[in-house]
Amino acid sequence: MTVIESTRVRLKQRIADVLAEDLIAVREELSRQFRSPSMFVRDVAEHVGRFQGKQIRPILLLLSSRISGIAGGHRRQAAMLAAVVEMIHAATLVHDDVIDDADLRRHVSTVHRRWNTETSVLFGDYLFSRAFHLAATTGDAEACRLIGRATNRTCEGELNQIGARLEQSLSERDYFRVVYGKTAQLFAVSCRLGARVGGASEALQSQLSQFGSRLGIAFQIADDVLDLTETAESTGKDSANDLANQRMTLPVLRALRLASADDREKIRGLLFSADPSDQQVLRESGLLQQGIESARQSCERFAERAVRCLRSFPDSEERLLLELVATYSAHRSE
Amino acid sequence: MTVIESTRVRLKQRIADVLAEDLIAVREELSRQFRSPSMFVRDVAEHVGRFQGKQIRPILLLLSSRISGIAGGHRRQAAMLAAVVEMIHAATLVHDDVIDDADLRRHVSTVHRRWNTETSVLFGDYLFSRAFHLAATTGDAEACRLIGRATNRTCEGELNQIGARLEQSLSERDYFRVVYGKTAQLFAVSCRLGARVGGASEALQSQLSQFGSRLGIAFQIADDVLDLTETAESTGKDSANDLANQRMTLPVLRALRLASADDREKIRGLLFSADPSDQQVLRESGLLQQGIESARQSCERFAERAVRCLRSFPDSEERLLLELVATYSAHRSE
Repeated sequence: MTVIESTRVRLKQRIADVLAEDLIAVREELSRQFRSPSMFVRDVAEHVGRFQGKQIRPILLLLSSRISGIAGGHRRQAAMLAAVVEMIHAATLVHDDVIDDADLRRHVSTVHRRWNTETSVLFGDYLFSRAFHLAATTGDAEACRLIGRATNRTCEGELNQIGARLEQSLSERDYFRVVYGKTAQLFAVSCRLGARVGGASEALQSQLSQFGSRLGIAFQIADDVLDLTETAESTGKDSANDLANQRMTLPVLRALRLASADDREKIRGLLFSADPSDQQVLRESGLLQQGIESARQSCERFAERAVRCLRSFPDSEERLLLELVATYSAHRSE
Repeated sequence: MTVIESTRVRLKQRIADVLAEDLIAVREELSRQFRSPSMFVRDVAEHVGRFQGKQIRPILLLLSSRISGIAGGHRRQAAMLAAVVEMIHAATLVHDDVIDDADLRRHVSTVHRRWNTETSVLFGDYLFSRAFHLAATTGDAEACRLIGRATNRTCEGELNQIGARLEQSLSERDYFRVVYGKTAQLFAVSCRLGARVGGASEALQSQLSQFGSRLGIAFQIADDVLDLTETAESTGKDSANDLANQRMTLPVLRALRLASADDREKIRGLLFSADPSDQQVLRESGLLQQGIESARQSCERFAERAVRCLRSFPDSEERLLLELVATYSAHRSE
């Protein structure tokens, strides 16, 4: 275990301690959502429950509510909204797995592999629907609107990714437009909702939202790097998924930009080859190494820029934890 | 053209005349939703716009608001909510087409055939998201909650349908549980939202919701009958889709119940055969005729029971139109 990994383990533990009661409330809220009278729905819900990962979005929401000085009476509302963002995230995972025809998610079979495509599509819809319904039961129409706006932009980001691929776009501008939608929005709204329920001013809500957005971009770049560097064993999902689906990620774009003319042709040839083993050859060739390094630097810069958004908040353990989440998101290993 | 068809044409025209301004407002609201800055999103939205059909859910919502005495200031809100239920319906169509691997919808290529599965899944999600977002912009958290509850139950109905198929369930109880979810809920909430925005009492809202629910069941049974009796040419979508997917519909369940022991074995053999041409043989065999007749009778009974829910409302053209929609839904040809 490297130093950074051992620190990460202790950071996770500290967050779990600080948010202990709140995270229990989120888990209870989530399990309340799936006490369906139908055995089949319960079975699928239980299976999807095993995908549970870092819970970074609920954690961001809860820490943002704490840093904004949430009062006791609003803790239940924060837990409900934290469950909402986690369910929306789970819905996107279930649908992404159908789209990528993936086999594994967190070392567990994906829903469409365990059952079928129909179940995946409908269960993803069900998660979206339950999330919006739970948001509405808080009685806060503005929170519903913010969530809806975030999911609109998330979907637009994902659709733009298809558009960019159809055009074989190699522009960083298109890449960042996609990432700003598909990942940054849900991070941003998680922080904003936490700030809102914590009673923060409009200005502080915007700063926390900006923090979430930049952190989300750092998080996605780190994810794109992991797709090229990690094995299925360590991430628990199919590796080189983006590459196999010819999705233009930042490390690949940077590799193309930084390569010599000869190497650029080699990369392009392997990348757009119809033979799926060629993308694996590319991954192992070392041709992407420069791009990976460059993307890692950008990732750290976004994490640093995220941390700067927290300057207006007084010093507190919650602020420190948010800063550390940002820093460590740029050094992920899963 | 039969007498019933010519009356149907005039009924549609009358509804279009009565609701003219409101339906224009709904169309404007829908087109406002898809003025995306991205060309790709606009292209897909325009394509999906061509699926537009009978608009029965917005019509039910608007007529329900009228029958409840909606005042001028709430007309915009009614149009927004009518756009919401139409977008949710469109989302379910786009996802159903992925699930059924269908080629055609209203004589137009389905989204996954025109583009790919990824686009269908994500554009369906986008429609859901835009619908919830638009609902939230009305500022009415209770309307959002009602919509979320309806879509929860719709998804549960669709998931239960998979569960029933996996168990090869032949019970009418399971069939009605599925239909009550997957079709009746969106009809019911359309009527309830119209009543709510029109200012109806809680009791009258429930009566209109009940009207919608029964009408929805009649509508679905009629749909199940059309799957067995109509050609792709007249419905504009793939025929015998339910049969091909071995979904237990009321006419098939009734055919099994009413058949002689010999015929029942024949029906079962063809129905559960792995050879897809066998389901076509079944469709053309005449073995399902008794079941079709019996299902048609049930369909009419549900339409009649729907009409009875309107008794508390004073006589008006809107009430008559709602009654006629129910009656004609039981005699659909598309």
